[in-house]
Amino acid sequence: ASLSLGQYTFVQNAFSFGLAVMAAATLFLWFSRSHVAPAYRMAVTISGLVTAIAAYHYLQIMLSWEAAFSVVGSSIEVTGSPFNQAYRYVDWLLTVPLLLIELILVMRLARDETISKSVWLGGAAALMIILGYPGEVAEASGTRFTFWVLSMIPFIYIVYQLVVGLKGSISNQPENVRGLINGAATLVVISWLFYPIVFLFPLIGFTGGAAITAVEVGYTIADIVAKAVFGILILAIAIRKSEAEG
Amino acid sequence: ASLSLGQYTFVQNAFSFGLAVMAAATLFLWFSRSHVAPAYRMAVTISGLVTAIAAYHYLQIMLSWEAAFSVVGSSIEVTGSPFNQAYRYVDWLLTVPLLLIELILVMRLARDETISKSVWLGGAAALMIILGYPGEVAEASGTRFTFWVLSMIPFIYIVYQLVVGLKGSISNQPENVRGLINGAATLVVISWLFYPIVFLFPLIGFTGGAAITAVEVGYTIADIVAKAVFGILILAIAIRKSEAEG
Ligand SMILES: CC1=C(/C=C/C(C)=C/C=C/C(C)=C/C=O)C(C)(C)CCC1
Ligand SMILES: CC1=C(/C=C/C(C)=C/C=C/C(C)=C/C=O)C(C)(C)CCC1
Repeated sequence: ASLSLGQYTFVQNAFSFGLAVMAAATLFLWFSRSHVAPAYRMAVTISGLVTAIAAYHYLQIMLSWEAAFSVVGSSIEVTGSPFNQAYRYVDWLLTVPLLLIELILVMRLARDETISKSVWLGGAAALMIILGYPGEVAEASGTRFTFWVLSMIPFIYIVYQLVVGLKGSISNQPENVRGLINGAATLVVISWLFYPIVFLFPLIGFTGGAAITAVEVGYTIADIVAKAVFGILILAIAIRKSEAEG
Repeated sequence: ASLSLGQYTFVQNAFSFGLAVMAAATLFLWFSRSHVAPAYRMAVTISGLVTAIAAYHYLQIMLSWEAAFSVVGSSIEVTGSPFNQAYRYVDWLLTVPLLLIELILVMRLARDETISKSVWLGGAAALMIILGYPGEVAEASGTRFTFWVLSMIPFIYIVYQLVVGLKGSISNQPENVRGLINGAATLVVISWLFYPIVFLFPLIGFTGGAAITAVEVGYTIADIVAKAVFGILILAIAIRKSEAEG
């Protein structure tokens, strides 16, 4: 491949970092369940579940990366075993709907509203990931772009719902957490924006080793923000609401 | 083998997805035990046990798959180590009776009825799996078909019991869960129907790599619905009944 030894190692380190952060966040979140009132425990449980699922997939991604390349002298050669991109998409298919459900659960809406919002937002998130995958693995730029456009439709729906649809419910939240919940919704929108941008890197001039490195490291950073940092924000909201409600 | 690289990877991804879903569902179900009245905890414990057993078997299935094939250039060759179909059947032998017992337990029938229904339905389920296995590993289509027919006998008995026999008990359930319990029984019938159909794929014209891919991915999807989705439905029933009685 056109990957340099430095690029290869950098990506590997990023994956290992991702694994460590996700595993640590999982343990922290689950240990913290007992600090939270029963009504908010499911939100915290799911936050930890999301980072646990991600930890597993970072392990698989790292192993697949190591199997795909070998160091020969001071250069990198492909072994023939392909680097499996699908682990990311499998991870997202599971975790992206769950991330939205975390946010909905911590708001503690009426049961009907919780269920309908979970189904609509979770379903749109799953659709977005499924539509992105054929583009990710496509060789041709045209195909990559077409699926990007298709996947942007549910993406925009979700962002719209978070920015406009959830705002009404946020104004009914207790005052001491309104800022945090707004922060969590904003964090989702901003961190999620990274993904469609990173996806376009190969189309906007990054090629070869630089493109691979930028895409893999970019997704890893975005994942850490969207899962671990977000999960801890959800925990903070749950702790404050538990305190306020006594 | 006649398996293409794309098919090989797709099946591997499906197994990894199965493993992640089953493990995540296990943790979620066990963490949720505390949200449920003691009378319903055993049903939820068993739901998590079923997905835990499945997670273990998906790991074994995935490792067996990786050991059975190797990527040479851009094609797939068999290594000689056979792909072990038995893991699925061992898994089913344990989990299929437990799935029926989950449903019976969450209904909270009289103790005698719980025991007799568990023995009869659980026994029929075990028999169904045992009769299917010789067909699954048979080379000859005739043998495959014969054991399919034999295994269909306990299958039809179970479906009949769920559709007709359990209906009487369902009408004695509290009103707020009748819909959910009906839904769970229907989910069993529909998701279980997949298995004998998938089993027939090789007899109805799918051959080579396409047949293997269709069978393995088909079973994996059916397993996720029948174990993880079903387990969460059982949890939802248990939570609602706990609230109503509590
Ligand atoms: C819109 C769009 C995409 C969006 C992906 C997103 C928004 C992923 C979010 C992942 C998260 C939040 C992971 C968790 O940690 C894809 C699939 C790249 C394909 C191109 C178009
Ligand atoms: C009728 C029939 C079968 C039925 C299998 C079933 C119904 C399996 C259910 C498995 C479940 C529910 C797994 C759990 O998750 C076999 C054995 C394929 C053999 C062919 C005939």
